[in-house]
Amino acid sequence: MSKAVFLTNYPAGMPGPEHFETRDVDVPKPDEGEMLCRTVWMSVDPYMRGRMRPDVKSYIPPFSLDAPLEGGAVSEVVESNVPGFEAGDYIVDFLGGWKEFYISKGERTQKVDPNLAPLSSYLGVLGMPGMTAWAGVTQILKPQEGETLFVSGAAGAVGSVVCQLGKAKGARVVASAGSKEKCDWLVEEAGVDVALNYKDYKNANELTKALAEAAPKGVNCYFENVGGMHLEAALNCIALGGRMALCGMIAVYNNTEVEPGPPNLVNLIGRGVMARGFIVSEYMDKTMEFAAEVAPLLAQGKIKYQESVYEGIEKAPDAFVGLFKGENKGKAVVRVGPDRS
Amino acid sequence: MSKAVFLTNYPAGMPGPEHFETRDVDVPKPDEGEMLCRTVWMSVDPYMRGRMRPDVKSYIPPFSLDAPLEGGAVSEVVESNVPGFEAGDYIVDFLGGWKEFYISKGERTQKVDPNLAPLSSYLGVLGMPGMTAWAGVTQILKPQEGETLFVSGAAGAVGSVVCQLGKAKGARVVASAGSKEKCDWLVEEAGVDVALNYKDYKNANELTKALAEAAPKGVNCYFENVGGMHLEAALNCIALGGRMALCGMIAVYNNTEVEPGPPNLVNLIGRGVMARGFIVSEYMDKTMEFAAEVAPLLAQGKIKYQESVYEGIEKAPDAFVGLFKGENKGKAVVRVGPDRS
Repeated sequence: MSKAVFLTNYPAGMPGPEHFETRDVDVPKPDEGEMLCRTVWMSVDPYMRGRMRPDVKSYIPPFSLDAPLEGGAVSEVVESNVPGFEAGDYIVDFLGGWKEFYISKGERTQKVDPNLAPLSSYLGVLGMPGMTAWAGVTQILKPQEGETLFVSGAAGAVGSVVCQLGKAKGARVVASAGSKEKCDWLVEEAGVDVALNYKDYKNANELTKALAEAAPKGVNCYFENVGGMHLEAALNCIALGGRMALCGMIAVYNNTEVEPGPPNLVNLIGRGVMARGFIVSEYMDKTMEFAAEVAPLLAQGKIKYQESVYEGIEKAPDAFVGLFKGENKGKAVVRVGPDRS
Repeated sequence: MSKAVFLTNYPAGMPGPEHFETRDVDVPKPDEGEMLCRTVWMSVDPYMRGRMRPDVKSYIPPFSLDAPLEGGAVSEVVESNVPGFEAGDYIVDFLGGWKEFYISKGERTQKVDPNLAPLSSYLGVLGMPGMTAWAGVTQILKPQEGETLFVSGAAGAVGSVVCQLGKAKGARVVASAGSKEKCDWLVEEAGVDVALNYKDYKNANELTKALAEAAPKGVNCYFENVGGMHLEAALNCIALGGRMALCGMIAVYNNTEVEPGPPNLVNLIGRGVMARGFIVSEYMDKTMEFAAEVAPLLAQGKIKYQESVYEGIEKAPDAFVGLFKGENKGKAVVRVGPDRS
């Protein structure tokens, strides 16, 4: 027997442990063309909240209630009938999350080298969040030397990489995060120019004032993880010809009532702004480019990252819920099993 | 003496005749490097409302209260000390509006041929509104054969050209306008596939339902002139990989209270949508491309247009106010003087 986490009902507002259940399931047997995998690390990510809304059309289907959840994971191949994979290989895929063992056909699967970087980093800075940050910065925002980049959710798995890529490209970086401790890390470790603790500001007007001071020439690039008053402040401070990469709006994911958008969207017109919503899967053909740019920066210590580690698959719901409470520092990962079986 | 229209105070909400005054001014004398021009046709455009907000940062400065207003016009050169221009030439510029005579240095001035098309069309389909439509369609939206293009404010000077360019590029075109008469013109003359009279719909939900029926495969491209419930409905129906050209939000230009934005901006992310606010002046280096594409379509009768003509400079404020009341059909122009002096 092995364990897997099921969603037992769709959360209406903030998700909690009551929406999940860890159940015993059989360890499956791999058929021809299949391999058995053992999950080592699993990822929790804000986008998963979107898959808990069965009524909303999106880029991936909602989670089913009658099957284990799924998500990004680093796993070890235990037994393989898939050409090109063998027992002992380490892989990253989008199936292994929320379970201890599973069957894969090797589709959308990447092999990873456990000697190049810690295994868990393939779920963070070298994984989907890092790729998301890289795609937003290099494919959408394209910050130029001397321009100002504003990043919301800046201490998170995506935001922290955005900040450091921005610095590497010569931008002035203004970061927003939700605690003094996170802001200190952003200034001292990630090297941002200004970090704003958004909890110091009661509303969009106050945040706008702080942002305008931190970005006296205006915001040329905005990387959006949060929504709400952050988007409104960014629209107030956006420069002529500004760009916005819309990656997430975590502030609104758990809303049960309709929350209106910012009242100042018309600034997009008067200032000739491009706002691009995106999902990382659009850029999957650029994975090599991403790795080639970010892996050396990581090796040189020019990109630092934090991890919040949860021990054991039973803690996966806590890790997920923590995303919306601002409890995690950097990338939240769950240790599902040991590195080597 | 000659006449010019002054803005006497900045409107707080809807502009009206009480904000304008037609005054007598001297006919100026051209110095070295200057020419005296006589306005034949002047344009009124929604963007001018933005120049009546002295507190809002935008791409052009606000109008002054102590000088005649300015805006696009077709004029005749009366006396020229500018090399390359001579008496009898016809020109289009951004100075000649709201006055009978004025001095130009020939900057941002284009000569036009009175034999190629009616002079007033250089303020509409062959002028800034046509160029705006062309830039939004060809530089931002890039509709592909078989895609669906939704256009708000579709019977206006810009929208009507957007619709017809969309049809010329093989798109299915869904248009929205504010009267049955306008919708009939859009279907019968402009050739759109479906025209929605938005006054039939009480709110964004009702408009969404109608749009979803008219665009069963979703909206690939949205050309935004209106804002408000139109934007919300478009966000509800936008397809994966959709594009939005944000040209205007006339529904909110006269708001005195802050009106919240649409509650469904998060769809930009889940559907990977690019929304680009723009102003036509960004694309001025492509004026030749525009003329080369649109002039032949016009000559072949593939682009039709309507004009609302106001007679006499004193009517200019009425023409302008009419923009916000949906009173004008197609391009609103004011006859300031005869074609030939």
